Amino acid sequence: MLDKTIISNLEQIVGKKHVLTDKASLICYSYDATQRKFLPAAVVHPGSTEEISRIMALANQHRIPVYPRGAGSGFTGGSLPTSTDGIVLGLTRLDRILEIDEENLVATVEPGVVTEAFQKAVEKVGLFYPPDPASLKMSTLGGNVAECAGGPRCVKYGVTKDYIIGLEIVTPTGDIITTGGPTMKGVVGYDLTKLICGSEGTLAVITKVIIKLLPLPEAKKTMLVLFDSIDGAAQAVSSIIRNKIIPATLEFMDGRTLDCVRDATSLEVPDSARAVLIIEVDGDREFLDKQAHKIAEIIKPLGVVETRIAETPAESDALWQIRRSVSASLRRVNPDKFNEDICVPRSKVPEMIRKIDTISDKFGVPIVNFGHAGDGNIHVNIMIDSKIPGEQEKADQAIAAVFAGALELGGTMSGEHGVGIMKAPFVGMELGNAAIDYMKTIKKALDPNNILNPGKIFPSDV
Amino acid sequence: MLDKTIISNLEQIVGKKHVLTDKASLICYSYDATQRKFLPAAVVHPGSTEEISRIMALANQHRIPVYPRGAGSGFTGGSLPTSTDGIVLGLTRLDRILEIDEENLVATVEPGVVTEAFQKAVEKVGLFYPPDPASLKMSTLGGNVAECAGGPRCVKYGVTKDYIIGLEIVTPTGDIITTGGPTMKGVVGYDLTKLICGSEGTLAVITKVIIKLLPLPEAKKTMLVLFDSIDGAAQAVSSIIRNKIIPATLEFMDGRTLDCVRDATSLEVPDSARAVLIIEVDGDREFLDKQAHKIAEIIKPLGVVETRIAETPAESDALWQIRRSVSASLRRVNPDKFNEDICVPRSKVPEMIRKIDTISDKFGVPIVNFGHAGDGNIHVNIMIDSKIPGEQEKADQAIAAVFAGALELGGTMSGEHGVGIMKAPFVGMELGNAAIDYMKTIKKALDPNNILNPGKIFPSDV
Repeated sequence: MLDKTIISNLEQIVGKKHVLTDKASLICYSYDATQRKFLPAAVVHPGSTEEISRIMALANQHRIPVYPRGAGSGFTGGSLPTSTDGIVLGLTRLDRILEIDEENLVATVEPGVVTEAFQKAVEKVGLFYPPDPASLKMSTLGGNVAECAGGPRCVKYGVTKDYIIGLEIVTPTGDIITTGGPTMKGVVGYDLTKLICGSEGTLAVITKVIIKLLPLPEAKKTMLVLFDSIDGAAQAVSSIIRNKIIPATLEFMDGRTLDCVRDATSLEVPDSARAVLIIEVDGDREFLDKQAHKIAEIIKPLGVVETRIAETPAESDALWQIRRSVSASLRRVNPDKFNEDICVPRSKVPEMIRKIDTISDKFGVPIVNFGHAGDGNIHVNIMIDSKIPGEQEKADQAIAAVFAGALELGGTMSGEHGVGIMKAPFVGMELGNAAIDYMKTIKKALDPNNILNPGKIFPSDV
Repeated sequence: MLDKTIISNLEQIVGKKHVLTDKASLICYSYDATQRKFLPAAVVHPGSTEEISRIMALANQHRIPVYPRGAGSGFTGGSLPTSTDGIVLGLTRLDRILEIDEENLVATVEPGVVTEAFQKAVEKVGLFYPPDPASLKMSTLGGNVAECAGGPRCVKYGVTKDYIIGLEIVTPTGDIITTGGPTMKGVVGYDLTKLICGSEGTLAVITKVIIKLLPLPEAKKTMLVLFDSIDGAAQAVSSIIRNKIIPATLEFMDGRTLDCVRDATSLEVPDSARAVLIIEVDGDREFLDKQAHKIAEIIKPLGVVETRIAETPAESDALWQIRRSVSASLRRVNPDKFNEDICVPRSKVPEMIRKIDTISDKFGVPIVNFGHAGDGNIHVNIMIDSKIPGEQEKADQAIAAVFAGALELGGTMSGEHGVGIMKAPFVGMELGNAAIDYMKTIKKALDPNNILNPGKIFPSDV
C-alpha cells in the first residue's frame, strides 16, 4: 500500500488519469510472459522524461520501489512488480518515433515504440533495423534495450545492443543523462549506453533510444534442409560460415521437435529427418541464387534427407510454416512450457542436445529444442502438466541440469531472455562471487536506496 | 619514490629482473605518442594474471597508483604514469595467442599480443579480425580494448568493442573476474565486457581477451576518386551507402591535405581536386568489379575530377601512396602536429570542414583534415612550430574551438583516441555534470582508493 500523499504527489506529476490504483488496473500490470503475478500498489504512466525524473526523485526520497515496464512480454520477469508497495512505471505513452535521419541512417525513438512498428517505419524509407525478437509484434524498443533482445537474424546482424548508439536515461535519483549520441563512433568516458543495454531496468529508466540503421537488403531467399542427424545440421552451420557465407538466419529444430510437428500437423516431415535447418540469405538479388546453390553444395555430404529452396515469397512462407507450427504442436504434448534460452559455442550444439536428451530421460519430462543454430542459442522447452503433483519439481531439476550442462560446454544460461527473477537463483552457477560482487557494487553505487527494479538479476537483494 | 619494502614485495611477486627502478628504464616507460613525459617510481612486468592480482592487492593496500601499459602508442596519454610514486604495469610479457578456435570463429589472447601479429595469425587460417588502428604494427590488443581502438575498416566492420565478447580482468582490489565468454550471445548480468572496453584502464587491468572473428573476405578492390569539393565527396559517401554498398573503407583527405601532398611529393594531384576518397570494397571476388563500377556510376554527378580503379594489388598499393605520404608532407608545413579525432554525423562532414577552415584562419594555424569519412570521424591535424612563442597557445585555442564545433553538430570530441589526460580538461563540454557524476560514481565504487590509472578521463581526480 502506498501512502495517500504519495499517490497525490504522483497525480500532481503525471495528471490524475495517469495514476491507476483500482484493483482491475493493478491486475493488468501484475504479470508478464512468465505468468507469475505480483500486484503493484499503483501504476503510473508518465508522459515525458521530466515527469519520470520527478517520479524517480519522489520514489528515491520515500524509498518506494519502481518497476519500469514496456509491453510486459519478457520471459524472465524483468518487469514484474515484486514488492507490494511498488509502482509500475508504464512507458507506453512514450511511443513516438522522434526522427528517422535517412542521410545518416540513425533514428531516435521513445521507449514505448513497438519493435515491429519501428521496423516497418524504417523499411518504408529503405532502411533496416535487424533485431527481431519473437515478441516483436508487442514488445517495445525500451524493453528490447533493457533486456538486450535477440532473434533469428542475430547470427548475421548482431543483437539489440549492436544497434544502440545512444540513450537518454533517468537515474534512480532522478537525474537525466544523455549517453552516446548520433555518431558512429565515440569514446569519451565510460560506455554507459552498453552498460544500460541488458541491465534489465535495474540501473536507469530508458527515456530515449538512438538507433543505428542499415540499408534494407534488396531481397532474401529461404531454404529448408532436413538432416538425418543433429550433427549433420550443426556441421552444416559451421561449413556454411567457413565458406564465407553468413546467412541472415540459421534456425534449427531438433528431432523431438520434428516428431511433435509430424504428430500434430499435416506438414510433410519424413521419418528419417532428425533435424532441420531453415536458412535465409539476404542481400543483392542476383547474388542470392548463387549463394543458395553454393549452400546446397556445401551441405550435401552431411546427411541431407531433403532440401527445399523457395523461389517465391509464398514458397518461402510455406517453408517457415514448419517453424511456426511448433508452439501449437508442443501444447499437444503437455499444457505447460518452460522456455529456457541457453547459448553454447556453435560447434557444441549437438553435444548440448545429447545432454538435454539425457536430462529429459533422467527426469522423465519431455524436452524439445529449437532455436538459433548460427549463434549456438538453443531454446530448450520443458513440457509438463503442472497440475500433476511432482511435475513442477521435476521441471525445476531438469532446468538446473540444463544450465549446468550449458556451463560445462563454455556456454551461458541465457542468450536472449535475461535473468529477471526466473534465473536469479541460478546466477551464482554462471558468474563467480567476484563478478556478482562487482556488479552489485555498481548497482549499489548508482541506486543507493535500491528502489529501481529491486530483486532482479542478483540471487538476493543488493 | 617507493618504499624499499614495496619494491622488495614487488620483486617477490614477479621476480627481481622484472622490476625496474634504474633511471634509464624509467625514462623508457615515461612517455607515449603524446610526447608528454612522467617518470614512474618503478616498472613492473608481471608474467601471469595471479601476479597482477597480487600486485593490485599490494598497491591497493598501500594506495600506490598503478598505470597499466601496452605498447604506449596512445594519442591521449592513457598509459602515462602521472604520479611520481606510481608503478607502470607493463603487460608485454603476456603476449601469447592462447587459442584460435577455427570452428567457432573465436580467439583467446593475452593483452600484450601486438594487433598486427594477431591479424596475421588469424588470416593464416582464413579468419579475419577487422579493427585496424593506424598503430597496429606496435599497439597491443589489451591497449586496443582499453581505448576501444578504431581504424579505416570500422565503417563496415565496427570498432574493437564489437569484436570483444569476453575478458578476464583484475579489479583494483586484486579480484580476478571473467566477463562474458566464448558464446555469440549472453545476457546474464551487466555487460562488464563493454564497460571495460574503452574505460582507458581506469576500472580494471585486462589480462585476457576473448575475440569474435569473421571469415576472411575473399578479395578486395581499391578505387581513388578526386572531387572538386568536399561536399561532393561527402555526398558520395552517403549515396554509396544508400545504394546498399558498405565499403570496407571510405577514407577522405581534404583540399588542404591535398595541397600539402602536391607540394611535398611527385604524386599527381590535379589543382582542381579539393577532396579525395579512397574507397575499398571487399568480399566475393566476382562481385567486386560490379560494385566498383556501380560506385563509379553513383558518384559520377558529384563533381568527380578523376576516378582511378586498381586492377592489381600493386595498383591498389599505388593508390594508397597518396594517403601514406600525408604524414611526411605535413612535417614540411610545421614540425609539431596536434592530432585530434572528432566524429560528427556522416552528413555533417562538409560543414565541419568549413568550420575548421574558419578556425584555422581565425587563429592563424594551419589545419589539415583527413580520416574516416564513412564514420564521420575526422582526424584534425593542427600544425605548429611550438618553439615559436605564442604558437602553442594558438593551437590550444584552436583545439577548443574544433571541439566546440563538433559538439554543435551533434558530434563528439573523440571517435577513437579516447580522453586520457589530453582531453580531460574538455570533457565537461561534451558530457553533462550528471553524466560525469554517474561515471565517477562507478569509478569510485570499483576503485575506492583511486589507485588504478588515476587522473585520466575526468576533469579532476575522483
